[in-house]
Amino acid sequence: MSKIPPLSGFPELLPAQRNAELAILESLRGVFELHGYTNIETRAVEPLGRLLSKGEIDNEVYVLRRLQADDEAADAGVGLHYDLTVPFARYVLENAGKLEFPFRRYQIQKAWRGERPQEGRFREFTQADIDVVARDELPFHHDVEVARVMAQALAALPLPGLRMQVNNRKLIEGFYRGLGISNPTEVMRVVDKLDKLPSDVVVERLAEVGLSPDQAASCLDLAQIRTQDGAFVDAVRGLGVEHDLLDVGLAELAAVIAGCRDFSNARFTVEADLRVARGLDYYTGTVFETVMDGFEALGSVCSGGRYDALATDGSTTYPGVGVSFGVSRALVPLFQRGLLTASRSVPSVVMVALVDDSSRPRSDALAQRLRARGIPTEVAATAQKYGRQIRYAERRGIPFVWFPGDDESTDTVKDIRSGDQVAAHPDQWVPATDDLRPKVVDTTRSGM
Amino acid sequence: MSKIPPLSGFPELLPAQRNAELAILESLRGVFELHGYTNIETRAVEPLGRLLSKGEIDNEVYVLRRLQADDEAADAGVGLHYDLTVPFARYVLENAGKLEFPFRRYQIQKAWRGERPQEGRFREFTQADIDVVARDELPFHHDVEVARVMAQALAALPLPGLRMQVNNRKLIEGFYRGLGISNPTEVMRVVDKLDKLPSDVVVERLAEVGLSPDQAASCLDLAQIRTQDGAFVDAVRGLGVEHDLLDVGLAELAAVIAGCRDFSNARFTVEADLRVARGLDYYTGTVFETVMDGFEALGSVCSGGRYDALATDGSTTYPGVGVSFGVSRALVPLFQRGLLTASRSVPSVVMVALVDDSSRPRSDALAQRLRARGIPTEVAATAQKYGRQIRYAERRGIPFVWFPGDDESTDTVKDIRSGDQVAAHPDQWVPATDDLRPKVVDTTRSGM
Repeated sequence: MSKIPPLSGFPELLPAQRNAELAILESLRGVFELHGYTNIETRAVEPLGRLLSKGEIDNEVYVLRRLQADDEAADAGVGLHYDLTVPFARYVLENAGKLEFPFRRYQIQKAWRGERPQEGRFREFTQADIDVVARDELPFHHDVEVARVMAQALAALPLPGLRMQVNNRKLIEGFYRGLGISNPTEVMRVVDKLDKLPSDVVVERLAEVGLSPDQAASCLDLAQIRTQDGAFVDAVRGLGVEHDLLDVGLAELAAVIAGCRDFSNARFTVEADLRVARGLDYYTGTVFETVMDGFEALGSVCSGGRYDALATDGSTTYPGVGVSFGVSRALVPLFQRGLLTASRSVPSVVMVALVDDSSRPRSDALAQRLRARGIPTEVAATAQKYGRQIRYAERRGIPFVWFPGDDESTDTVKDIRSGDQVAAHPDQWVPATDDLRPKVVDTTRSGM
Repeated sequence: MSKIPPLSGFPELLPAQRNAELAILESLRGVFELHGYTNIETRAVEPLGRLLSKGEIDNEVYVLRRLQADDEAADAGVGLHYDLTVPFARYVLENAGKLEFPFRRYQIQKAWRGERPQEGRFREFTQADIDVVARDELPFHHDVEVARVMAQALAALPLPGLRMQVNNRKLIEGFYRGLGISNPTEVMRVVDKLDKLPSDVVVERLAEVGLSPDQAASCLDLAQIRTQDGAFVDAVRGLGVEHDLLDVGLAELAAVIAGCRDFSNARFTVEADLRVARGLDYYTGTVFETVMDGFEALGSVCSGGRYDALATDGSTTYPGVGVSFGVSRALVPLFQRGLLTASRSVPSVVMVALVDDSSRPRSDALAQRLRARGIPTEVAATAQKYGRQIRYAERRGIPFVWFPGDDESTDTVKDIRSGDQVAAHPDQWVPATDDLRPKVVDTTRSGM
């Protein structure tokens, strides 16, 4: 068997990288749970009809077939989910009678899309989603809530700078209607191309969908407003457009921006960005996108918004608001460039050395006493010279080597980073809290 | 849209059940990491050739196809993994140059099999695997190690009684060869049917594969030996068979049983069971199976063993030893019978009540002060009467309701289980550690 090539679009991590990802997922999970979001896990597959009902991504779905199905029909019709929103909406409908609303959940799972792999776009990827869903009505304050929860979560991550850009579809639609535009959704789709097309081309396209030059100019003026505080309200007012829906949208966006203010730091900012519309039609109010500094080409790494009909069974409607962090989209490019890893490839804080081959039981017993106090510990593989045993620990990034003495009162432990070696008792010694678990090493900044 | 039926064979959990599963996974993970096992995650798909090379389960593989693939060939040839061993072996070969050996890893992931769903057998299921793999040689003491790690992990779980049954293929083969049997693998496969067939039928089958009545009787005598300590050694010796390989197998099995002795408790025992052979041909020494009391029909919920060639690239061989706990196989039947759940459906320890609709910012700020000290907290959904707000918390299992006073010095907190209400300061109050996270409720015994 020859060397095995990786499968394009299905990224996998080396152990140290995975330890960094685990620390980041743990950090996200911690913030989500602090806010009362409960975890659920949905199956990997959904009926094709449900996957295709959104209509936008039909050619990206992976369909499942049993290799030797004798009853082709029995298998037909399920595919792997391409996001966590479709399965969540189905889960809510399927279990509506057993859930308490408003229902706050987070979900950290893989999703699959059969698209052409490119940087930040994978065929298998991990997402971390939070959503609040209610029955019939979901008060606006939950928009502020999910924005705050995700802001607190992102602000804690050891990533390059993240900018969360927030807008509001009511604000845009109200503004357009105030301008006398009758097809605001169509206009939004054109303005959304400002990222990819020169503004004069966008103006041409706006003329094609029926806008006058003045209307088009006002749309572009609106899209250029971007502020880190509530100043966008006066800037919009300054454009002289009036509409009730615009007023609602301005108030909502101002509340989201004000609610997230506490979480800005050197790595994370929140701003009102009136260009953001999100292509998907089902958003009805707040919308989010997030860019990572230096990685703008990845597109948004954390997106979401308000949907007044996340799910419906015909008689009852379940409105929701949520945000999805693209774990793989943000992290894998950092791993690939060597910008992110962990301080070690194993959980072990301590490696207990072997005095000789026959003393393994003694080293095992010492290790077990350290473990009994919550200290991850492994025992050296072989009774080589101590210098080689230390290098064994070093290659794994294990910070401490434990040397058994004649009895437990003469044991010593060496910090192999500093070379310091001190007397230590297996029932008393504790490592620094900071050393207890592998740490994220963000080579672009300081550690997590 | 009408009521959504569940998809047979793809079990999903309600939030409280998921909280119980998460606590159990966290417990497993904690033990694995204490022993220096590092987590990896492999992609969901493998090339079909690799999935089918074991040859036993070809009709159970789910193959992937892009719904609108324009290049059928580009997609052909990948399927979902049906266990975590095949992907792990491939990961080791693919990354051999970047891994440190011996390599200890744990992996907790979904796997998929297109088989007919029945209790404990699902089309999508979660497994928790530990393995140690080395390059060229893997010393026997790692067999004892993985047995001890899994024993410690299983002994901590709030499940019905678990019995880990250990045997050794060298012991069986040595015994058979000592009896003059030349086709031990074939005989093992027949004896392995003792679970399903009456012993006289097994004797007939043994005659069909060439055994004399005396040989067959000895094979059955061996298979009936089962002890919780090293007494099996004398019992085997008493059968009067001698072979060098038998001696090796007896010594190895005795070492595994002795190594696990510390972990026996009221819920978990380890025993030498000389009937266990494991059907799969690739085991070469230690083999494990585990039955759950009262759920014997599920088959083994935790199995594994030693394979001298976990992976090979033609020039280098990677021997391994590992055990796989069937998380879904063991837990889902307990969930389905209502025997296992969690103390609450949300992470929240505290719900902050709303004095009135306009005081939401005050309740939000109180909640944020509790969260800042690591206390999961949510705010009431609406400013209903306090009685209804308390019932809102009760339905979710949230143990404490926080009542904002006129200022923070007059806040109170009520334990809604006991009804006790006491003065509390948002920067000082702490819940009992035991209340901080949802607890597993094992309705067959006491809580975890």
